[in-house]
Amino acid sequence: MHGYTDNKDAHLRRLKRIEGQVRGLQRMIENDEYCIDVLTQISAATRALQAVSLGLLDEHLKHCVSQAITDGGTAADEKIAEASNAIARLVRS
Amino acid sequence: MHGYTDNKDAHLRRLKRIEGQVRGLQRMIENDEYCIDVLTQISAATRALQAVSLGLLDEHLKHCVSQAITDGGTAADEKIAEASNAIARLVRS
Amino acid sequence: MHGYTDNKDAHLRRLKRIEGQVRGLQRMIENDEYCIDVLTQISAATRALQAVSLGLLDEHLKHCVSQAITDGGTAADEKIAEASNAIARLVRS
Amino acid sequence: MHGYTDNKDAHLRRLKRIEGQVRGLQRMIENDEYCIDVLTQISAATRALQAVSLGLLDEHLKHCVSQAITDGGTAADEKIAEASNAIARLVRS
Repeated sequence: MHGYTDNKDAHLRRLKRIEGQVRGLQRMIENDEYCIDVLTQISAATRALQAVSLGLLDEHLKHCVSQAITDGGTAADEKIAEASNAIARLVRS
Repeated sequence: MHGYTDNKDAHLRRLKRIEGQVRGLQRMIENDEYCIDVLTQISAATRALQAVSLGLLDEHLKHCVSQAITDGGTAADEKIAEASNAIARLVRS
Repeated sequence: MHGYTDNKDAHLRRLKRIEGQVRGLQRMIENDEYCIDVLTQISAATRALQAVSLGLLDEHLKHCVSQAITDGGTAADEKIAEASNAIARLVRS
Repeated sequence: MHGYTDNKDAHLRRLKRIEGQVRGLQRMIENDEYCIDVLTQISAATRALQAVSLGLLDEHLKHCVSQAITDGGTAADEKIAEASNAIARLVRS
């Protein structure tokens, strides 16, 4: 059980759609479509991946991090440090 | 024929690998893997998509934009404006 | 009193340094320095601003959000929603 | 003389405004303003810096890179490689 369990189906649907976008990108390149059009579609897929990240992170804060804080102790500090590192990776990618 | 035609196979291989990463993300969520581990893998897929974008853009500048500039006329200005817009979308996504 | 109060001096020093970087950018442009060198320095200032953001956010989670969760009630949900929105703005900027 | 010379005053005005934003951030922290409000203002300053970058890059393509391509030779390839590297730094920062 994780933070995202309640929205598992929604996340899977989004990732399925992103998989379709990535396959669409391969078709575009196979068909020699125009570079700029390919770039536009890559930006769309990137934003869709970011949206999944932001959703997972929100649920992680709401459930895993909140639970650790309620339980108290050093586990809470570790969970927050871990979340902050994940946010940093997200911002820099 | 586009800027990326010479590297078509390399781009397709990269996108195939990204498609595998996105399928891997679905498996992680199906198996209830830990949120932070899913986020790490999404960051990796996002960076891989960006690398494809940066490669396509470099080739676009080298071929399509360079050709338009060599040909001269207003087509060159349009190609540069179009490339700048694509760069802006990339930076903001 | 906020999450960042303990590190106020460190944040102010960092922002003072970023202010210096932005003044340095103005000098570079006044002196007609090379575009690419100006861009490199803008990337450095942007990353420095992001580092301040990530520090503030980490402290916000550690103090304000943790406190709201410990106190319980709807305030905790609001704090987490607010933090998630701030993270989304950060990722997209 | 560089790509941005024609818009030098506009860039300087923008950077002057960003310098003001960074000083405003220092005041916010000195006055213990709310973390999330500080983060919102950092996002605004970051986006303003990106806008300067995108403007400089557009002018760089229009002038320096175009000139190198018109002149022909290996200088054109070097200019494009240099621009692509600057774009990559921008995307990743």
